[in-house]
Amino acid sequence: MTLLLKKDEVAQLINMKNVISAVEEAYRAFSSDKVEQPAYIGIHLPSQRGEIDFKLGYYKPAEIISMKAHSGGFTNNPADHGVPNSMGAILLFDARSGALICIMDGSLVTGLRTGAAGAVSVKALARKNARKITSIGTGNQARMQIRAICEIVEIDEIYAWSRTPEMLSKYKMDIEREFGIPVIITRSKQEAVQQADILITATSGKGEPVKADWVKPGTHIVAIGTDQRGKQELDPELFRNAKIIVDSLSQCTEKGETWHPLDKKVITQADIHGEIGDVLLGRKPGRESDDEITIFDSTGMAIQDNTTASKIYQSAIANGVGTSFRFFE
Amino acid sequence: MTLLLKKDEVAQLINMKNVISAVEEAYRAFSSDKVEQPAYIGIHLPSQRGEIDFKLGYYKPAEIISMKAHSGGFTNNPADHGVPNSMGAILLFDARSGALICIMDGSLVTGLRTGAAGAVSVKALARKNARKITSIGTGNQARMQIRAICEIVEIDEIYAWSRTPEMLSKYKMDIEREFGIPVIITRSKQEAVQQADILITATSGKGEPVKADWVKPGTHIVAIGTDQRGKQELDPELFRNAKIIVDSLSQCTEKGETWHPLDKKVITQADIHGEIGDVLLGRKPGRESDDEITIFDSTGMAIQDNTTASKIYQSAIANGVGTSFRFFE
Repeated sequence: MTLLLKKDEVAQLINMKNVISAVEEAYRAFSSDKVEQPAYIGIHLPSQRGEIDFKLGYYKPAEIISMKAHSGGFTNNPADHGVPNSMGAILLFDARSGALICIMDGSLVTGLRTGAAGAVSVKALARKNARKITSIGTGNQARMQIRAICEIVEIDEIYAWSRTPEMLSKYKMDIEREFGIPVIITRSKQEAVQQADILITATSGKGEPVKADWVKPGTHIVAIGTDQRGKQELDPELFRNAKIIVDSLSQCTEKGETWHPLDKKVITQADIHGEIGDVLLGRKPGRESDDEITIFDSTGMAIQDNTTASKIYQSAIANGVGTSFRFFE
Repeated sequence: MTLLLKKDEVAQLINMKNVISAVEEAYRAFSSDKVEQPAYIGIHLPSQRGEIDFKLGYYKPAEIISMKAHSGGFTNNPADHGVPNSMGAILLFDARSGALICIMDGSLVTGLRTGAAGAVSVKALARKNARKITSIGTGNQARMQIRAICEIVEIDEIYAWSRTPEMLSKYKMDIEREFGIPVIITRSKQEAVQQADILITATSGKGEPVKADWVKPGTHIVAIGTDQRGKQELDPELFRNAKIIVDSLSQCTEKGETWHPLDKKVITQADIHGEIGDVLLGRKPGRESDDEITIFDSTGMAIQDNTTASKIYQSAIANGVGTSFRFFE
């Protein structure tokens, strides 16, 4: 039997606290060789359409193989096809038998586990007294970061910046209503960045990068937007004296934010402190002083989908949610 | 809405004639740049278990992206988990929107489209008066080859050989009952091969290879079993003076039967006549005399799954078969 889970069921079965613990588990597992995670496959479609990515992960201790198909960038979808511009499905296989045990809508999981990634890094790397957040970017993922970081620290105020003034005011209205946290709209990106205890960059990676001298000592940077070549959110100079922590060494040096300072020879591979899994496992120190700048470069990994979707599946089984379907007798 | 199709519905929605035409379409499309087919991803599990492969294909003219997850080699499945040792699922996406339009049981499609591959090659490459088939191997795929080739030529008799005598007598009984074609069990593999107008090799690729001097002039060879390194069914010497046709140049030279004579320097890449798609498109000649030995090396391609599954999906829509499921509102 295969369990089918709709989007609203997925939403009901998981909360951000659980996603954060799933992502922590994923990072620990990834850095202890408990994971097989082949390079993902992307099919890029002609313009006006986006791409469909297929991301596979095998989490050995749980014996679960996940496959996430995720489409994005189909800008004409709502008008032309009456469907969202981004959709997804996640398949879970029992690795003991190869059986397909679950198919769930995957449109929420990517956003949730990426939000949780930022929160995990805040827990491990931000100053304990960090209270002021700066958000560069005001879209879905920028909001998800707030939703997740809220679970970890008490946020006093959020400084926000976006190139689009309407987006900024909508962000302010939405965040103040949902979280009751005051949002301060600054006149420049620089002004917003200068306030940050925790700096989130969650843009499309096409704007002017955050300058190194805007960032005050002790800031923790959550670099979310850059997950492929051609995107950039941070001045490579920022990496020169920062403590650099990545989700995956191979991905971040290949196509994450960390690629830029490597490419510009501002740093070498040896200057990367390590993977966040190493910090969580206690193999490498996290933040060591209130003055250091820490950068967490998140490119996103299949194993985050795996552990998050597994938690959703387990919760569905425990609560009798979903539709069982028998593909064969 | 996503259409769900069970195994028995899939069986009812497709016949071998349609699979043969789907595979012909796949080969033509593949050899005319109408296909995107990334290298597949396999997750290999510890012993007593097999592997799960994920094969992706994008058929541009139809705007369909397919993803087949296929498990095999889980020998303890029936006893330990009450499920078959091989299972599968195929997902179809509308490439215009990225929407997941269909999820079907995939356990039948691989066998059917591989059977059809042999039949397509027989149509294009065997002598018109070919009537005697030799089958090296008596398993599921060896039977599927007969089922498919039946649609193309009138078979007078089948010479069969297997290392396991019980398999041989079961094969004889089953084939004679199902197709009414006499099956002759020979005393040796050589004796079986010497009879062939059409020689099918559909074994696990671990037995003694078919010797070059056993094969009479004019034979068409359907080489099915070798789809990865470590498998072999034919003496590399057989390739020296044969017309070599492959399903995919890149796959066959990398891990098909054709890899062996290349590795042994019996042939060079230039000695490969071409892809079967080129023959079907009329860009390259097929058989040019009644004396030549033709070899078709089939490694199997995602695009065969794509066009076959698309036909099943279209037939389901036309006949109102299947279960519609709404993963999101």
